[in-house]
Amino acid sequence: MIKLAVDVMGGDNAPDIVIEGVKLLLEKDSEVEVQLYGDEKYQFEHDRVTFHHCTEMITMDDEPIRSIRRKKDASMVRMAEAVKYNEADACVSAGNTGALMSAGLFIVGRLPGVERPALALTLPTVDDKGFTLLDMGANADAKPEHLEQYAIMGNIYARAIRKIERPTIGLLNIGTEDKKGNALTRETFKMLSERSELNFIGNVESKALLSSVADVVVTDGFTGNMVLKTLEGTANNIFKMLKAELTKNTKNKLAAGILNKDLKGLKNKMDYSEYGGAVLFGIDGIVIKAHGSSDGRAFYNALRQAKEAVKENVVETMRKEVTND
Amino acid sequence: MIKLAVDVMGGDNAPDIVIEGVKLLLEKDSEVEVQLYGDEKYQFEHDRVTFHHCTEMITMDDEPIRSIRRKKDASMVRMAEAVKYNEADACVSAGNTGALMSAGLFIVGRLPGVERPALALTLPTVDDKGFTLLDMGANADAKPEHLEQYAIMGNIYARAIRKIERPTIGLLNIGTEDKKGNALTRETFKMLSERSELNFIGNVESKALLSSVADVVVTDGFTGNMVLKTLEGTANNIFKMLKAELTKNTKNKLAAGILNKDLKGLKNKMDYSEYGGAVLFGIDGIVIKAHGSSDGRAFYNALRQAKEAVKENVVETMRKEVTND
Repeated sequence: MIKLAVDVMGGDNAPDIVIEGVKLLLEKDSEVEVQLYGDEKYQFEHDRVTFHHCTEMITMDDEPIRSIRRKKDASMVRMAEAVKYNEADACVSAGNTGALMSAGLFIVGRLPGVERPALALTLPTVDDKGFTLLDMGANADAKPEHLEQYAIMGNIYARAIRKIERPTIGLLNIGTEDKKGNALTRETFKMLSERSELNFIGNVESKALLSSVADVVVTDGFTGNMVLKTLEGTANNIFKMLKAELTKNTKNKLAAGILNKDLKGLKNKMDYSEYGGAVLFGIDGIVIKAHGSSDGRAFYNALRQAKEAVKENVVETMRKEVTND
Repeated sequence: MIKLAVDVMGGDNAPDIVIEGVKLLLEKDSEVEVQLYGDEKYQFEHDRVTFHHCTEMITMDDEPIRSIRRKKDASMVRMAEAVKYNEADACVSAGNTGALMSAGLFIVGRLPGVERPALALTLPTVDDKGFTLLDMGANADAKPEHLEQYAIMGNIYARAIRKIERPTIGLLNIGTEDKKGNALTRETFKMLSERSELNFIGNVESKALLSSVADVVVTDGFTGNMVLKTLEGTANNIFKMLKAELTKNTKNKLAAGILNKDLKGLKNKMDYSEYGGAVLFGIDGIVIKAHGSSDGRAFYNALRQAKEAVKENVVETMRKEVTND
């Protein structure tokens, strides 16, 4: 049995989507046990569920480090403690990202040798292969040696979870030429070029991300977060404008009716909720952040991903490969 | 008469699109004279055109600073010299961006008091208002004082060219809260907050850019270039996928036929070529970069923008307001 600790209270649509995602997992997967942390009024009966009542919760507005330290009985804190004390194999929350990173860092703890943990997200591409982008914002002021470790951790993850034998690693940059970019990317480029164990393919541009330019794309947390929000914002705005065109008169509505299913498929392809949660790399345990506006299905995908990471022993591999470095 | 110097040889589709854009301008605007720089075989007769034969040209692969210094008779170099020696009021090229920035910096020269020039682009938004984003990549390693000057220059430009009385200025960041971001944005936030002459509205997120969140958005050249390429890449990929869905069977093709005009309108809305070129701010003259893959119409829009900048005395205003600072 794989034991997952879950924060019932975190996320814009908690606890409903959390409960929905958990129930879906229990129904589809007989290999997991779930420990729920939150207000007992959301308790439900299931032979593979234990409920742990918590009197506090961390809100989206809470200051990350302070809230983790002060709210000792918050659902997110207790969920992270379950991983720390080996009562659970992994934990999942859709709550405050900063607080969850702090919980990972200060409660679960960093892996020895890891300088800065990174938040990694696997995103869709046009051909459905997807790519893992890190750091998505754990560390806004990164140094070249941090990015080098992100590449090593991303490589391990892509092998273990995405089953890619020799993942291609790209450095996100504003041009593909070797000397392009800022001081950070130029120095990181040199360091990654010297690592023969990585399949480093050089600089990749953000406009090529959706075309499967690399399996793992490495960047600093500021840029990663910026690019993610630009991708999301652009896609949302285009679909909004498309919808306006498709519904603006009867003629268009009729045509849209014919296309409806295919256009929905297209929108789903760009939908990050299908791709699980963000994983905090470099932590001595599995900590997964489900998207704040997750629905039940997205939360279920984040739970599945947590289970997979446990099964594939991702943390142990990272401990070995990062520490031996 | 406003005199524009034009690089006939620069750009992926030069000289055809350059000649096309120039002819369109001459036809529509009787207030301009055009000086063309390039191979004389592209010469054509017009009473408001003078042709200056050049024996060299700068290619997309040329190393910027070196090519500007060595290729003394390159069309881009001679076009910039025309501005320097006051033979032309402004210059426009669709060629090598780095080389054009170097030509602006080393031939036309920096405005006194400007620490780093910045490349500014006005981009479309869903409601057609648009926003001016800078720096788009002139300076990949920016400091807070550079971003502060970008805000001042962007404010002048939005007032003079976009006729916005009191432009809203946003700082591009990974969150809207005051203390969000990296060391650069946190320090810049403080500096901009203290400038009461600017209508600084705080941090803005990239996902809100297309929703007209601010009239001017300030960022470092690495992030600006990254965000632009992400916007373009995402929009292109979505339209590519949309096209695939619309043409995959007869039923869809029929429906697409009905929607054709409206969908084209949508695609045009996201088309940067309609929005003219990028302007190099902080230079002692008007230097405009038309998009490398411009068509004739996009080049025409860049020429119009150059004329407007001359007419509105943008450089003189920047000289006064930046120098008095």
